Amino acid sequence: MVQVEEAEAIIKAEVKDFGTESVPFEEALGRVLAEDLKADRDMPPYNRVAMDGIAFRYEAIEQGIQTFNITATQAAGDKPVEIQSAEECVEIMTGAALPASTDTVVRYEDLVIQDGMATLQTNGINKGQNIHAQGKDKKQQEPVALASQVVTPALIGVAAAVGAKELQVKTLPKVVVISTGDELVKVEETPLPYQIRRSNSYTIKAALQQYGLQADLLHIPDDVATLKRQLNNCLQQYDVLILSGGISMGKFDYVPQVLEELAVTKLFHKVKQRPGKPFWFGKHDNGVHVFALPGNPVSTFMCFHRYFLPWLQACLGIGAKSSLYAALSKDITFNPSLQYFLQVNISLNEQGQMLATPLEGNGSGDFANLVEADAFLELPAEGCNFKQGEVYRVWPFRRKV
Amino acid sequence: MVQVEEAEAIIKAEVKDFGTESVPFEEALGRVLAEDLKADRDMPPYNRVAMDGIAFRYEAIEQGIQTFNITATQAAGDKPVEIQSAEECVEIMTGAALPASTDTVVRYEDLVIQDGMATLQTNGINKGQNIHAQGKDKKQQEPVALASQVVTPALIGVAAAVGAKELQVKTLPKVVVISTGDELVKVEETPLPYQIRRSNSYTIKAALQQYGLQADLLHIPDDVATLKRQLNNCLQQYDVLILSGGISMGKFDYVPQVLEELAVTKLFHKVKQRPGKPFWFGKHDNGVHVFALPGNPVSTFMCFHRYFLPWLQACLGIGAKSSLYAALSKDITFNPSLQYFLQVNISLNEQGQMLATPLEGNGSGDFANLVEADAFLELPAEGCNFKQGEVYRVWPFRRKV
Repeated sequence: MVQVEEAEAIIKAEVKDFGTESVPFEEALGRVLAEDLKADRDMPPYNRVAMDGIAFRYEAIEQGIQTFNITATQAAGDKPVEIQSAEECVEIMTGAALPASTDTVVRYEDLVIQDGMATLQTNGINKGQNIHAQGKDKKQQEPVALASQVVTPALIGVAAAVGAKELQVKTLPKVVVISTGDELVKVEETPLPYQIRRSNSYTIKAALQQYGLQADLLHIPDDVATLKRQLNNCLQQYDVLILSGGISMGKFDYVPQVLEELAVTKLFHKVKQRPGKPFWFGKHDNGVHVFALPGNPVSTFMCFHRYFLPWLQACLGIGAKSSLYAALSKDITFNPSLQYFLQVNISLNEQGQMLATPLEGNGSGDFANLVEADAFLELPAEGCNFKQGEVYRVWPFRRKV
Repeated sequence: MVQVEEAEAIIKAEVKDFGTESVPFEEALGRVLAEDLKADRDMPPYNRVAMDGIAFRYEAIEQGIQTFNITATQAAGDKPVEIQSAEECVEIMTGAALPASTDTVVRYEDLVIQDGMATLQTNGINKGQNIHAQGKDKKQQEPVALASQVVTPALIGVAAAVGAKELQVKTLPKVVVISTGDELVKVEETPLPYQIRRSNSYTIKAALQQYGLQADLLHIPDDVATLKRQLNNCLQQYDVLILSGGISMGKFDYVPQVLEELAVTKLFHKVKQRPGKPFWFGKHDNGVHVFALPGNPVSTFMCFHRYFLPWLQACLGIGAKSSLYAALSKDITFNPSLQYFLQVNISLNEQGQMLATPLEGNGSGDFANLVEADAFLELPAEGCNFKQGEVYRVWPFRRKV
C-alpha cells in the first residue's frame, strides 16, 4: 500500500515518449504540437492598411496640404498602387498592402470625398497611423506556436495563415480499455436480475476521445486461461492497457496474478485513498504500461483522472499544468486515514473565486452521481475535519472555464 | 450602432429550436440531451455486495455465533445462493447480488477462513454493512440525466448502464462558414506579397467541432453578382451563415447590401465594442440567421465567442451558464467609449481565485496573440481606468478548469 503522492511519483517516473507524426492541420484539434510552428513570412506580411480610407505621405500634412487628388483605388488583394507626389493619395481598403510611396492612412470617417478629391476633416493626424506594420506581430521564422502546445481553434487558424498544411504532433499511445467481471453484460442485452451492463470502458473511451485518442474496447471473462491469453495478446499490440476490475481481494480477482505471470512487473498495488484503494500499476518487460483500475465506476473514474490523464499529458509533453485549487463551501468530515476524493460541484462566484460544493454520492458504486458532479476535491489523509473556506486541490472532469 | 447588451438581447430574441435526433450513445459526446434519460432498473438493480468476504444473517451475531459454515461461493454475476440457517454463510464477491436469505457482509480482512469455516475477527459489525442497497442511487424510471445536459464521459457510462443504445439529442443547425476578401488565398498556395491565406474560417470550423458540429466552408470573391448568387444558395441550404469580412466602410464591402437585397433583414449593424465594431446580424424571411462578423481575425474570434456561441448554446437548450468573473492582475487604461474585450491569460491562484493577466496584442489583426491567450475580459464602455483586483466578466476560449 502506497500513499497517493508515492503512487503519483512512481507513475511519473514511467513517462514515455510515443514519438511524433504528421497530421493535416484541420484534423489536429486537441493534439499536441511536436515542434515549433514558424511564421513563413512576417506577420503581417506587409504594412497592412487597418482602416478603409486614403493613403498618402505624411509630409503633405507638414506642407499644409488638406486636399488630395485620388490617383487610384486599391482593394485588399490588389498590387499596391504608387503615388508620385505629396498631393496625391490612394483610396485604399482595410487589409490592403500599403503602397511604399505612402506612410499614413486616414479613415473615411475623417474625410470628405468629392469629384475625385479627398479632403481631410480632422487635424489630429499622426504619421504612420492606421497601419499594422509588417512583422509587428511576428517576424519571419519566429515561432507562432511552440512545441508542447495543445492545438486550439486559434492555433488552427494560425497554422492556416502560415501555410502549415500538415502539423507535426505527438503520436498518441495505442490504448485498449479492458473490462473484467462476469456480472457484466453487453449494453444491448437485458441483464438477468443479478447482472449489470458494462459501462466503465465506455466512459474511459469517451474521456480519451477528448484528446483525439481512439481506444479499443475489450471484455475478458473471469477465467484465468482466457484472461492470460487475451492479456498476452494485448501486451503485444498496445502501448497501454487500462483495465477495470479484478484486482481486489475476491477469489476471482485474477488480474494481478495473471499480469505478473505475463512478465508485467508490479510497481504498486493499493493506494491509501478512497475511492480507488485497490489500484494496481505495472510495466511489462517490453515497456507496455498497465493501469489496472478498480472496477467500481467511481473508483475507475477517479483513478483515470488522478493518475492516468496526468501521465498521458506528461507523455505527450504538455507543459506541466499548474495545480488547481478550490475553496470548500461547507464543512466535511472524513475519518479514515485515507486521501479522500470528494465529488464536488465547481462554481465561480462574482469575485472570481472557485468554490467546491460537496456532492457526496453513495460510495464508489454510485456512478449516477458523477453525471451531476464537476470535479474531485482531494482532501489529505492526515485530516478528518475539513472546514468551509479551506482551499484544496481540485481535479475537474467537466468543463467550467 | 448598438451597445453590447442590446446586440446580445437582439440575438437572444432569435433563439431557435432545431429539433431532436437519435444518435448512438457512443457518438453522443458533447451533444445535448433532448430528453431525460431514465433508469431502466433500480440503481443498483439488486442489493449489491460492496466487499469481498462472506454474507450471513445478522441474527447470528445477536445469537453469539462467530463461526460460520461456508455453504457456497458466489461470484459477481452468479445467481444468488441461499442459506438455510444462521450458522451458514456464503463466501461472496464484490458486485454480487446479495442472497435474500442474508443481510450482512463481513470483508475478508475481518475473517479467518479455514476448513470450510469462516470465523469473525471483529466485534464491530452492523446489520446491513457492506451492502449497496437496491435502488439507493436511483429508483427505476427515475432520471439519471436530464434534458439539456451536455453529454459527458460520465453520462455515456450511465447511458451504457441503463441500456440506452441511442440517445435523443438536440439536432445541431446546419452551418456554413463563409470567408470573403480578395486578398485571401488557399492554405496550400504561396501568397503574392500583397496577399494572405484564409484562416478565420478554419478557426471557426474547429471551434464548432467542439460541439460536434461539422460546418461547411466556402470562400466567395468580392464580386457583387457572385456574392449574391452564392449567398442566395447558402440561404436555401443552411440554418445559419457565419461570414467573415466585407461588412465595414470599404468600397468592396458588399455583404450588408447584398444580404438586404436577398431579403435578409438587418437586426443590427455595428456594436460599440473593440474589437468587432462592424458586426452585422440579420435574419432571412425563411428564418435563416446570418452572423456577418468583421474580417479581422481577432474581431471574428471575439464576436464568435461573445455572440454566436451563447446563441448556439441557447438554441440547443443548454441551461444558461452562469457568467464567469476574473480579477484583473494589473491596471489597464482604455479610453475610447467602447466595450473593450481585452485578451487575457487566466490563472487560478492557491486561494482558488481566478486572475486575468492582460496579454494585449497589436490590435484586431494580431491573431498570433490569440494562440497565447485564454479568454477575453469584458471591460465596460463607461470606464477608462481599470484597476488591479477589480473583477470583470470573462469569456474563456481555452480550457482551464
